[in-house]
Amino acid sequence: MNFKDMDVVSIRDFSREQIEEILERSRQMLPYARGEKISKALEGKILGNLFFEPSTRTRLSFESAANRLGARVIDVSQTSETSMVKGETLADTIRMVEAYSDVIVLRHPHEGAARLAARFSNKPVINAGDGAGSHPTQTLLDLFTIEEELGNIEGMNVTLLGDLKYGRTAHSLAEALTVLGAKLTFVAPETLQMPKETVDRVKQLGGSPLITSDIEGIISSVDVLYVTRIQRERFPDPAEYQKVAGTYRVDREMLREAKKDMIVMHPLPRIDEIAPEVDSTPHAKYFKQAFNGIPVRMALLTLVLGVEV
Amino acid sequence: MNFKDMDVVSIRDFSREQIEEILERSRQMLPYARGEKISKALEGKILGNLFFEPSTRTRLSFESAANRLGARVIDVSQTSETSMVKGETLADTIRMVEAYSDVIVLRHPHEGAARLAARFSNKPVINAGDGAGSHPTQTLLDLFTIEEELGNIEGMNVTLLGDLKYGRTAHSLAEALTVLGAKLTFVAPETLQMPKETVDRVKQLGGSPLITSDIEGIISSVDVLYVTRIQRERFPDPAEYQKVAGTYRVDREMLREAKKDMIVMHPLPRIDEIAPEVDSTPHAKYFKQAFNGIPVRMALLTLVLGVEV
Amino acid sequence: MNFKDMDVVSIRDFSREQIEEILERSRQMLPYARGEKISKALEGKILGNLFFEPSTRTRLSFESAANRLGARVIDVSQTSETSMVKGETLADTIRMVEAYSDVIVLRHPHEGAARLAARFSNKPVINAGDGAGSHPTQTLLDLFTIEEELGNIEGMNVTLLGDLKYGRTAHSLAEALTVLGAKLTFVAPETLQMPKETVDRVKQLGGSPLITSDIEGIISSVDVLYVTRIQRERFPDPAEYQKVAGTYRVDREMLREAKKDMIVMHPLPRIDEIAPEVDSTPHAKYFKQAFNGIPVRMALLTLVLGVEV
Repeated sequence: MNFKDMDVVSIRDFSREQIEEILERSRQMLPYARGEKISKALEGKILGNLFFEPSTRTRLSFESAANRLGARVIDVSQTSETSMVKGETLADTIRMVEAYSDVIVLRHPHEGAARLAARFSNKPVINAGDGAGSHPTQTLLDLFTIEEELGNIEGMNVTLLGDLKYGRTAHSLAEALTVLGAKLTFVAPETLQMPKETVDRVKQLGGSPLITSDIEGIISSVDVLYVTRIQRERFPDPAEYQKVAGTYRVDREMLREAKKDMIVMHPLPRIDEIAPEVDSTPHAKYFKQAFNGIPVRMALLTLVLGVEV
Repeated sequence: MNFKDMDVVSIRDFSREQIEEILERSRQMLPYARGEKISKALEGKILGNLFFEPSTRTRLSFESAANRLGARVIDVSQTSETSMVKGETLADTIRMVEAYSDVIVLRHPHEGAARLAARFSNKPVINAGDGAGSHPTQTLLDLFTIEEELGNIEGMNVTLLGDLKYGRTAHSLAEALTVLGAKLTFVAPETLQMPKETVDRVKQLGGSPLITSDIEGIISSVDVLYVTRIQRERFPDPAEYQKVAGTYRVDREMLREAKKDMIVMHPLPRIDEIAPEVDSTPHAKYFKQAFNGIPVRMALLTLVLGVEV
Repeated sequence: MNFKDMDVVSIRDFSREQIEEILERSRQMLPYARGEKISKALEGKILGNLFFEPSTRTRLSFESAANRLGARVIDVSQTSETSMVKGETLADTIRMVEAYSDVIVLRHPHEGAARLAARFSNKPVINAGDGAGSHPTQTLLDLFTIEEELGNIEGMNVTLLGDLKYGRTAHSLAEALTVLGAKLTFVAPETLQMPKETVDRVKQLGGSPLITSDIEGIISSVDVLYVTRIQRERFPDPAEYQKVAGTYRVDREMLREAKKDMIVMHPLPRIDEIAPEVDSTPHAKYFKQAFNGIPVRMALLTLVLGVEV
């Protein structure tokens, strides 16, 4: 398989084999990501970070990944500054960044922006989130974390918990997990359940997700508890929000029924969804998950730039 | 000729021979600018980017140029952050950046700021635009683009089109083109024609520019069509703006009468001055022109830092 | 002595011997800080700059120090952008930066933030100023400047002038100077004199500071005149401010009585506290002092990362 010059727009663009190859490459990247080994694989390469909305974690993670491999980063993330304010089209902005770099990382508030950018750029474009669209590097680091922690994805009971309606992360992840053979449970208040479109797609891909609003009833069979934030703004009634937030808050109490090696994940930043008391339990893997953004992005950068490590 | 430790404040500071040497050095930089060859010529050097107003293209272009040669960049472009807000003088700010870097790139809203900065700094200062003053690296990359595309500047019919009154780019370029032997045409609505001062200076330098408001009448003899933006704010009457903008908009229709190898240039960003349909014609050189900012700035950095490549 | 993995939170954490070792290492860094020698001692390392309030000089100085030694810098200084705005705790933000870098430089508006950060991070944390708390790298570069310029700190008459009540710099410096055996004079208007707490601590450490509001009376015996800014906001009455600012303004007139080799220092930026006419006298060392931030921060980075140079 050859990833050279590929754009990374959506996780859907990758076959199961390609995803596995990326995860394998990510594993090779671990000692470099930790700074235990030094690589100059990307020396002389420039990554152009083009962020039309802030996303500190994603931006820094790409910066760190590039730097760990000897590449340099130029940053167009001060969005108020970009020529866009003067009325420049995305196509022209992309051509500018393309002229100054070897690979473009794009974050954009509008769905479809990454696909459009990829069409205008001769250099590879990596989608770092485009509105309600995709965020494939987040999905890949989630998959990598499960495989690293549990040794396998196939057959695992992965429970997505929280706001599954608006949480973009959950949609792509559900599809990709199904492709890789995980068993899914969707736990959310009724008004925030997984959209029919995603449920249908999971079924088409061969999955048969369990859909419920009751976390207590299923917690003992979960291998991966993937928590997403429930935003206060989704509820017209504050009392309703409080009730829901309380029910789904992960704390030591909730974890008492969990399998010993169940892992808790969260795309971060978290607010109240996971109690700080969980941090010191062996279940807590969300900080490691954040770190895993580095080896996964290193893997993608080396693959699309066609560089051996 | 020795450029070491020279400040680059105005294109007027350079003789024809010096300009030609810079263009020659720029040509040598092309494979490094494209990332085809890797150079560490500037390893260990630090470029201090000091931007008192945003200019994404210029800033990124310097960053990319420095990085391609192994230098590092420190960035004082978040203007709201600088100590200036606390009342520090430009002289003190320059001395700070000087202490932390080997070459200073200065963008400033006020004419004369670069000359002042150069006086206070023992490290070379490169003017990246100072208000209505100069923007010599823009002029150099424009000259480089013409020479690269047409093989020569001397004798070429270069037509400057658009807002020639307020467009700083046009003034310096007109002078430099005259020094290098090009024949000039100034096409603008009467209220936005080239200022008498610049016309006089072009004549002093031996030029005899054709001044007109009619692009259709002269398009067939043009070698280089250099388009600049006409800002809506220049017109008290919106209807008047619409008429002018329409007349000077470059599209396939206008280009039908053009020479086959005429090139269209634009300092970018563009809004409506050039129709997107022009992008795919062989005339369109504005994206290549933007890219040319890299080799030209690489050339200047290596020259003022006294480094062989 | 081993500094590896140490946090640098307060100058009080260091013994006299440790301070002297840092200053000695700083001296070794000078040729690298000036760019005369090139070192790759920190190649492969990443410094995470986490600035919750702007401080251009400190940020750039760390960036330059890291870059001069081959490290890379990732920057979370666009504070409006960080996840903090979404309600993330400092602990979680620190864990994020920790995952992406090898050493964290933290600037924070609240006293105690650096100590807290150090507790949550497994990577070394360097305090770049936390509110009314400490700013140990500023103190170290001040000490280094005195030793470099006068050859010694012990026995020197160091006069702190200006706002000694609110000027954080002055408090830590007074303590550290006493530890290193300097003799102190505090010159300030009565309402802005050194707080009793700091005076007491200086005395506990064996010092016996002279406290006065009269600079003219003591100028002839001063070895180091350390000037700090008096902020207009401290005075309810503008006339009172004008009088005080005038009295303490350092100019050639005031320096007429000074020792030939007395040095004038200032943490910068300055506004009116030192007349520009002083810049060209041999007394003026404030720009050199700013430069000294580089070798001192290089020294700290190499020490806490356990790297030989």
